[in-house]
Amino acid sequence: MTTATTSRLTPASGAPGAGSASHGRRFTGAALKEIGFPLGGIGTGTISLGGRGQLRDWEIFNRPAKGSNLPLCFFAIWARPEGGEAVARIMERRLLPPFVADRGLSPWAVASLPRLEEATFTGAYPTATIRFHDSTLPVEAELEAFTPFVPLDDRVSGLPVAVFLWRLRNPSSRPVELTLAYTQMNPVGFDGVTHLPRGRRHAMFGGNLNQWTDEGAIRGLRMSRPGFDPTHPGAGTVAVATTWRDVTFSEHWERSGWFDDIQNFWDDFRADGRLPDRAESTVSPAGETDAGSLGLRVRLAPGQTVELPFVLAWHFPSLVNYWGPFETLPGQSVVGGRMTNWFATQWPDAWAAAKETLERLPDLTARTRAFRDALFDSTLPPEVLDAVSSQMSIIRTTTCLRTADGRFHAFEGCDDNAGCCPMNCTHVWNYAQALAFLFPQLERTVRLTDYQFNTLPDGEQKFRTMLPLQTGVTWNYVAAADGQMGTLMKLYREWLVSGDDAYLRSLWPQAKKTLAYAWQLWDPNRDGVMEGEQHNTYDIEFYGPNTMCGALYLGALRACEEMARHLGDPDAAEYARLYASGRARYDRELWNGEYYEQHVRMPEPHEVTKGKYPQRHPPAIREGEDTPRYQYGPGCLADQLLGQWFAHVVGLGHLLPEDHVRAAARSIFRYNFRPSLVDHESCQRAYAVNEEGAVLQCTWPRGGRPRYPFPYADEAWTGSEYAVAGLLMYEGEVEEGLAIVRAVRERHDGIRRNPWDEFECGHHYARALSSWSLLLALSGYRYSRPAQRLRFAPPAAAGEFRSFFTAGTAWGTVRIAGRQAELRIEAGELTLRRLEIGERAHDFATPAVIRPGHPLTVSL
Amino acid sequence: MTTATTSRLTPASGAPGAGSASHGRRFTGAALKEIGFPLGGIGTGTISLGGRGQLRDWEIFNRPAKGSNLPLCFFAIWARPEGGEAVARIMERRLLPPFVADRGLSPWAVASLPRLEEATFTGAYPTATIRFHDSTLPVEAELEAFTPFVPLDDRVSGLPVAVFLWRLRNPSSRPVELTLAYTQMNPVGFDGVTHLPRGRRHAMFGGNLNQWTDEGAIRGLRMSRPGFDPTHPGAGTVAVATTWRDVTFSEHWERSGWFDDIQNFWDDFRADGRLPDRAESTVSPAGETDAGSLGLRVRLAPGQTVELPFVLAWHFPSLVNYWGPFETLPGQSVVGGRMTNWFATQWPDAWAAAKETLERLPDLTARTRAFRDALFDSTLPPEVLDAVSSQMSIIRTTTCLRTADGRFHAFEGCDDNAGCCPMNCTHVWNYAQALAFLFPQLERTVRLTDYQFNTLPDGEQKFRTMLPLQTGVTWNYVAAADGQMGTLMKLYREWLVSGDDAYLRSLWPQAKKTLAYAWQLWDPNRDGVMEGEQHNTYDIEFYGPNTMCGALYLGALRACEEMARHLGDPDAAEYARLYASGRARYDRELWNGEYYEQHVRMPEPHEVTKGKYPQRHPPAIREGEDTPRYQYGPGCLADQLLGQWFAHVVGLGHLLPEDHVRAAARSIFRYNFRPSLVDHESCQRAYAVNEEGAVLQCTWPRGGRPRYPFPYADEAWTGSEYAVAGLLMYEGEVEEGLAIVRAVRERHDGIRRNPWDEFECGHHYARALSSWSLLLALSGYRYSRPAQRLRFAPPAAAGEFRSFFTAGTAWGTVRIAGRQAELRIEAGELTLRRLEIGERAHDFATPAVIRPGHPLTVSL
Repeated sequence: MTTATTSRLTPASGAPGAGSASHGRRFTGAALKEIGFPLGGIGTGTISLGGRGQLRDWEIFNRPAKGSNLPLCFFAIWARPEGGEAVARIMERRLLPPFVADRGLSPWAVASLPRLEEATFTGAYPTATIRFHDSTLPVEAELEAFTPFVPLDDRVSGLPVAVFLWRLRNPSSRPVELTLAYTQMNPVGFDGVTHLPRGRRHAMFGGNLNQWTDEGAIRGLRMSRPGFDPTHPGAGTVAVATTWRDVTFSEHWERSGWFDDIQNFWDDFRADGRLPDRAESTVSPAGETDAGSLGLRVRLAPGQTVELPFVLAWHFPSLVNYWGPFETLPGQSVVGGRMTNWFATQWPDAWAAAKETLERLPDLTARTRAFRDALFDSTLPPEVLDAVSSQMSIIRTTTCLRTADGRFHAFEGCDDNAGCCPMNCTHVWNYAQALAFLFPQLERTVRLTDYQFNTLPDGEQKFRTMLPLQTGVTWNYVAAADGQMGTLMKLYREWLVSGDDAYLRSLWPQAKKTLAYAWQLWDPNRDGVMEGEQHNTYDIEFYGPNTMCGALYLGALRACEEMARHLGDPDAAEYARLYASGRARYDRELWNGEYYEQHVRMPEPHEVTKGKYPQRHPPAIREGEDTPRYQYGPGCLADQLLGQWFAHVVGLGHLLPEDHVRAAARSIFRYNFRPSLVDHESCQRAYAVNEEGAVLQCTWPRGGRPRYPFPYADEAWTGSEYAVAGLLMYEGEVEEGLAIVRAVRERHDGIRRNPWDEFECGHHYARALSSWSLLLALSGYRYSRPAQRLRFAPPAAAGEFRSFFTAGTAWGTVRIAGRQAELRIEAGELTLRRLEIGERAHDFATPAVIRPGHPLTVSL
Repeated sequence: MTTATTSRLTPASGAPGAGSASHGRRFTGAALKEIGFPLGGIGTGTISLGGRGQLRDWEIFNRPAKGSNLPLCFFAIWARPEGGEAVARIMERRLLPPFVADRGLSPWAVASLPRLEEATFTGAYPTATIRFHDSTLPVEAELEAFTPFVPLDDRVSGLPVAVFLWRLRNPSSRPVELTLAYTQMNPVGFDGVTHLPRGRRHAMFGGNLNQWTDEGAIRGLRMSRPGFDPTHPGAGTVAVATTWRDVTFSEHWERSGWFDDIQNFWDDFRADGRLPDRAESTVSPAGETDAGSLGLRVRLAPGQTVELPFVLAWHFPSLVNYWGPFETLPGQSVVGGRMTNWFATQWPDAWAAAKETLERLPDLTARTRAFRDALFDSTLPPEVLDAVSSQMSIIRTTTCLRTADGRFHAFEGCDDNAGCCPMNCTHVWNYAQALAFLFPQLERTVRLTDYQFNTLPDGEQKFRTMLPLQTGVTWNYVAAADGQMGTLMKLYREWLVSGDDAYLRSLWPQAKKTLAYAWQLWDPNRDGVMEGEQHNTYDIEFYGPNTMCGALYLGALRACEEMARHLGDPDAAEYARLYASGRARYDRELWNGEYYEQHVRMPEPHEVTKGKYPQRHPPAIREGEDTPRYQYGPGCLADQLLGQWFAHVVGLGHLLPEDHVRAAARSIFRYNFRPSLVDHESCQRAYAVNEEGAVLQCTWPRGGRPRYPFPYADEAWTGSEYAVAGLLMYEGEVEEGLAIVRAVRERHDGIRRNPWDEFECGHHYARALSSWSLLLALSGYRYSRPAQRLRFAPPAAAGEFRSFFTAGTAWGTVRIAGRQAELRIEAGELTLRRLEIGERAHDFATPAVIRPGHPLTVSL
């Protein structure tokens, strides 16, 4: 049935062009099956563009909804060559197997209307392009879809819209008359997850209103539901709009049973490409909603190309906490708590969002493409660009939220129908780097939440956030050693990126307390080594010294030392002392000549604090067992130098002896990276199988595997794999790092998994935002806004180097060829006192200010 | 990742052997993906054997459950060549993509334990054989799985068990020591459908008991839950048992959290192939159940082959009506009504069923294989054997039930988690033929229900059954013209097959009334033509004469005439008169030279009775529309001669002029069979797409398509397709019939759809039981037990002809070569007064009695 074309990691060789698919990763045939390319802004929810051109996974109703395909939402074309027969097609590639459904493939997905023969999907997040191939269609068709994405501009990048630009070309010698129509079901009142086997008919619906609107510059359908409970997560509006002037529309389809509505639409459209063009503004009866269609009409001369713009906007402002978390003190549940999404503070309804998008469409399109091109027109290897670009989409999936107060919040990931592991989990977000560099102002809001809301008076930091913040409720669960320490490194990063001393100063007292908390619980003897019960990202506690939590502790000490020095806090010296002591002892005790081990110790009963909290998992300390379960002991842990990796990201250098760090990174590659898993024996979850390559969380090359190793030890997480790859790159082991990145991305090939959804404990798992570090590592990027210092040091110095970068309030590209470096700023303004390229540096006598259109060229 | 091997319709060329896969259809690589081969008896629910050897779709808890994979149920092997390294594997082929799950592939499916490289699945229902291929395994492995199936023997064919025979061969020159272990989670208390993301841990479980039992001849694990509510659909027992003497077992796995239980099992098994062998008989704690394992041990000498038998039995007797139907008079709901499954009257618990199966295993295996071989060792084309065998499995899926009173009941099919369209739907079961010939005693119970429970005093027959029967509640909905007429043909068939005059006599008064009811509603002018409001299998009403309902009416008249004559009922003459009148008028008015049309007429208001009942669908008669919606008018309807097809099945000959019947069948093939659907435009449900071939329900080759044709007009239903194919074959158009059968079965290739699940309005849709008619048609089979007459007339007379057949209380094979005919009886006894082969006949002076082991050979 389908050609099992393997997707390619190499960039496409297709002809370049303004909107053409000259960048990104290509897929066709069977590899289109699993593709779901997220469209939507930050905190708006998403609709995914399927590989065949279908819209899938409608996750705009304030919760994830994998597999939820809204009925009656599709593009269709009607085209008639002059003097010829009209052709009508659904603008999707033909369906891909399996074709199984208990009552047949759904009429509400117009499954039985004819589709196009083949498609080539090119994804270069934030834009996706699908070129369709069909021998019966008298025009060539290409769809470009995106939601505006401009680094640092969280407003434009937070539009609750999807833009669809259809480029149609008439390759024949006869004029072609055509209509391209989009149909949308009015979904107001939908709960987001219920299966709708009867299409637009369900008890949830009724009183839905579609209104034809023509405002001169733009026109389209406004969808609403007057009088519907505004606090319902499905309350809101939808808009389907265009700037195109020659249109035809059906405000609402025939309100009839069986398949009459579809039949009526299709017959009408099929006949002449014209729809009824009748505006009535009446509401749907109880128990059903309406579908409406907007068609754009054009007569294409021979050889002519046209670009037909559609904007789909949505606006469901009511965010209700359905997720908990559930460990709370009696009477403190936050479930049911109501919030408003941030986008509602910017646009009053979907029509307003559509209108702004359409009014600014040339600009928003250009800026989005400029970012994409800045990112992809790079000498970085394609697998790195693929990993970086595809995973930064996580920021704009349902994993992330933005509340009306402007704050950014995030789950760890999304189960099929619910956010997973709320909220702002400090240890998972240790790995995430993309947001801090693309939208640092949003990342900074999370630190506010960490230190203003989740830090108790004694310095214990709750590693999950309870929403709404206004309740003042904190999570009733143990502190996470890795999360709490890593968050101090994040604070340092936010300060480095922003240079905002006031921000730093305001959080510093709380931040200090969270460091000091380590001396209560984890390092009571204050020697810079954590021995106590260290809850961590594996959802268990490590007992005894280990560099997994330890290197984050060392990194936190170094970061705090730097911040303290900047702020004139005398505790800097104590942080330095602890760091030196810890560094020496970790290295002395845990280095085994190849990597860092864990020294497991049985805790004293009074050290075990976890019993204070609700039990989510079975205890590690068992009657009759003389060692705690769920440790790694002499194992080679993939994350053993996570803190070191983070230290590189923020330019803190080597936390442990450089030769040991490098050797440990090599050992992780040697022992934990498996080019094939056919012989892998794991009793845990599977993220890579069969002949797939992956980095295992832990291996025991020297024996000593505990009988019950920590959960997840035998798994492979893309977020950790990227961090390992990044560490290898930072340590100069570029090829090894790339081998890992390739393995990860080849697992996400459209046949096996969705390239735009790396899941772990949930889809779009935040840990995978660690892939941003690949770009940083391969650029040798370091930036300090306080010092106005920027550094690049691409490891492979030969030939030209080109890369995207962000720096505080500016973003652009760097080009290095020989001793020549050129910095181009696309947006914002960058002031530099010092530019370093590898080992060479240029100090500007007066600070250089770089602005768009005025590149800076320096010879070093 | 996987080889996309297209499945083959041709029989396998593999080496034959007692249990080997010499018959059936083969699949490998990607074509294994959609396979689910149902294991289970009549009315017991099923567990499906997946193409990779996994157990999927656990539908044994009194409701369908597509996609429900019970945690911790799998086969595993441990094998150690003498002096070599032990290998341990899950006995399944490696996983097939996609590999998507929000929290990773489940540890409870042991997704990360190593599997085998490839498998070849051969399905010849009732047996499935999987040959595994793996370069690391020191033995060759083949699984044969089945549930005993013996035609006419509903007890043996109703065992709630699955038999797994593992054949292992040591091809090496060293002895191999091995354990083959099956693990089963104790599921007692499961509701059958809830997703179990935490494996054996769920609030539904607790107090589950696994007990090691050794009774000398058999041994294994008995699983129960003392004290659990016996009326719960998940109340019952499970047994895992063997006759093998050298065993090892784990009564229950470690009761611990995380993945400790799996790790502990695997480490233990991996080390030496031995399990703890500790019998404790303790119950699981609240909130969790236990998994248990049974391992069969053997030391295989070089070249040696062994067959290791496992029986999995289940026993969940409590059948609770969750399905309705819901159209009832106030206060009459049957939902919640309690019944007991028939198997509980035969076996007190799962252990008893396992025990009987194991004690009789050689006999049950031999009889099941004898049936399979009788069916497959045939000269009928492989696509016909594939269609006949695969779809007769419907009888043993959750589509069908058997209650403690011995009665058989059936849905139309199964939605993913619920039976669809309850119960005994007369019009859908018009198409179903397999049960009446394989288990006629069960089919007869449905006629009892039809005429004893569902026929009102005025002769209106409710076309669905309300269960439990004891409530006396009947369905509050309109009568179905096609169903009510077809059921009279079924009654005739049941009498032909059984020769049971008492049975016929007891139902005759009611049966007559249901025919007379036609004169009230459908044919008030008693001219043999139905003009009135004819509700039918398309869930709408036809208005005006049509042969879809009409030929069934003619067939009912002919069948009633025959039965009346036999019973000495003088109304036979009136039936004959009506038949002659109707036949003439239908042919005169509806024959258009190519096929039979419908003459649509607007009903008089008093004729519209449907308004008396709850509205399930929108009305066909609309204000302002001058013709009813949902008709076919001048269309070419696939089912236009369904009644004729049924008449052929029961030997009633041509109901309409033979030349017109033949021409109409040819027209259906010509106009409705589409070798590809790439240009098909349908607004209805999709059962065939893209390049697939299919018979469309209706086409309008002469124009006149109604604006809103009847629902399903543009769909393709396998049950109708087989009936069309059967009609073509009866009419001598064998190649055309075969082209249809091939198209249907090629759609079910393991990649696109499950070969053992043809779905329509639900999985395992009963209409597809029409495939049995292919065997009847190609055999030219006719049987009359009252007349003790048997006929075969294979249309392709050249060469040898071999086929399976049933005849009342006997079944066997027929072989015809030249003028020689040989009848072999495998079970039962067949008495014949007359044998016809084509146009030739042999009348026995004294009735011939054929018994197993004593074939009858006749020269004609």
